[in-house]
Amino acid sequence: MRIYFTFEPRPDLREPLVEEFSQCDFVFKNGLSTDELQKADVLVTYGEDLNDDNMQYATKLKWIFVASAGVEKMPAQAIIDRGILVSNVRGIHKSPMAESMLAHILAIKRALPWLYDHQKKREWSKKGKQTELRDNTALILGPGAIGSEVGRLLQAFGVTTIGCNRSGKAAPYMDEMVSFAKLTEALPKADIVISVLPKTAETTYLLKEEHFSAMKNDAIFMNFGRGNLVDEKVLIHAMETGEIGYAVLDVFEEEPLSANSPLWSCPNVIVSPHVSSHSSRYVERSLDIFKPSLMKWLNGETALENVVDLSRGY
Amino acid sequence: MRIYFTFEPRPDLREPLVEEFSQCDFVFKNGLSTDELQKADVLVTYGEDLNDDNMQYATKLKWIFVASAGVEKMPAQAIIDRGILVSNVRGIHKSPMAESMLAHILAIKRALPWLYDHQKKREWSKKGKQTELRDNTALILGPGAIGSEVGRLLQAFGVTTIGCNRSGKAAPYMDEMVSFAKLTEALPKADIVISVLPKTAETTYLLKEEHFSAMKNDAIFMNFGRGNLVDEKVLIHAMETGEIGYAVLDVFEEEPLSANSPLWSCPNVIVSPHVSSHSSRYVERSLDIFKPSLMKWLNGETALENVVDLSRGY
Repeated sequence: MRIYFTFEPRPDLREPLVEEFSQCDFVFKNGLSTDELQKADVLVTYGEDLNDDNMQYATKLKWIFVASAGVEKMPAQAIIDRGILVSNVRGIHKSPMAESMLAHILAIKRALPWLYDHQKKREWSKKGKQTELRDNTALILGPGAIGSEVGRLLQAFGVTTIGCNRSGKAAPYMDEMVSFAKLTEALPKADIVISVLPKTAETTYLLKEEHFSAMKNDAIFMNFGRGNLVDEKVLIHAMETGEIGYAVLDVFEEEPLSANSPLWSCPNVIVSPHVSSHSSRYVERSLDIFKPSLMKWLNGETALENVVDLSRGY
Repeated sequence: MRIYFTFEPRPDLREPLVEEFSQCDFVFKNGLSTDELQKADVLVTYGEDLNDDNMQYATKLKWIFVASAGVEKMPAQAIIDRGILVSNVRGIHKSPMAESMLAHILAIKRALPWLYDHQKKREWSKKGKQTELRDNTALILGPGAIGSEVGRLLQAFGVTTIGCNRSGKAAPYMDEMVSFAKLTEALPKADIVISVLPKTAETTYLLKEEHFSAMKNDAIFMNFGRGNLVDEKVLIHAMETGEIGYAVLDVFEEEPLSANSPLWSCPNVIVSPHVSSHSSRYVERSLDIFKPSLMKWLNGETALENVVDLSRGY
């Protein structure tokens, strides 16, 4: 069995894998080589190097393990036509993203940006405006795997969580649920409004001026889903007129965010360059999902974790 | 019943109190007036305005409510001699302090200082060194009320907690316990070392060069107890030689920290000017403790929450 990685894990991660699966031949090489693809039984990729052209070399390939959550850049039809199984690392972003969101929330509540600035000036001052997360209410747009993980952590800090999705049906770690239709009525309760919504027709410009008007004047708005959720002009207006207190943005209508965007210097706006899921442990976590799947695969099983239905796109 | 506050809570906190206890006369005035002290049955103070001189005016006083955890600046003997009951807001710091500690830990793990600096330069870069808190191990020196609250939150993030105290006896939210005597053996396991130890003879310079050598090279050391724990020269040496990765300091051998201290600009050292317990909700939280106590007091009860034994100092 020949297993071809189109990226190179660190030696401390690669070596135990090769040792554990000594019955397999491993190839680790950055970038896709059609020669290697032709010989591979299993391909491990970030999912951005396959296309209709190189797929014609994948004559032996039976399983593609995608070390990423998104599969939208993959040549779906060519893979389906060849009957190749695809699985991915869905859910891997949940923990680092939830940690990033809590990091930003707590940093604001406990005035860390203020503190860092005063340290640079070597100024001992106790006048930072610190408040508490405890007893806050958070509204979470899209309480799926990531949203529920944030909800779980927020509840540990004594926060009341309100989930908001299309149906208003119950979701894990949400004290209350509301449907999209009832969003405006729920917003005045929230000290923190977090979106982890994916990009769909329904979520495009879902948040409008009226929603920001309905939020508390000191609310923290966080977009960690997709930039299509709100027209950036509407958001900037909400910040400039003091409709809300803070905005923490990990996603933007256009990425990378233009160096001319007013968001970079808008007071109380935090620009995070779509890195909330990044982690030095990403490959390690991916291999933690890959290994038991490879074990099953070698036993002839195909019911692997996170099998992707490419015809549906997830 | 005349209740004298030597500070002025905000109107939104003061007014409900006056309304709820309409049978009492309230006086709110910043700074201690001996005239008012002479008329007061109950005194509410931050605990720094009483002394042997003004205590002679406290002829009617029967109860002092200290809106602070420390009582070391109070004229203990004069209060004991007059048979005045003292209670305080012990435990009130637990939640904001634990939130501060988590804020600092998560900010480091998720590279927020790096991110803030790049935002100032309007630079879209994904190269920040982000890692995860999940699966870390934290060693907590002094797992009392504050240490256990940090332990509880860390466990919610999937962190293994090791408590360390004199006896090594079990403490809440600690997966393991070690005694001071076994500290050096436990340190190599810890990704995060947190002290919330009080100042005593035993804790003075408890941490020595050998302890920093025993820590992981990327360990985060956090002192949120008292500055006597470690000689700052030893700590600076540990940072400069790369024995540890980060130091987050809320307390110092001398406070305020001198503008000349090398700690201000030592890479990977965060200087927090002893503000980790500060919160805009401090007075609100204090009144939440005061109100049920006042209710009991009006019913003739003296078994109030957090009664202080001034002869012992806590």
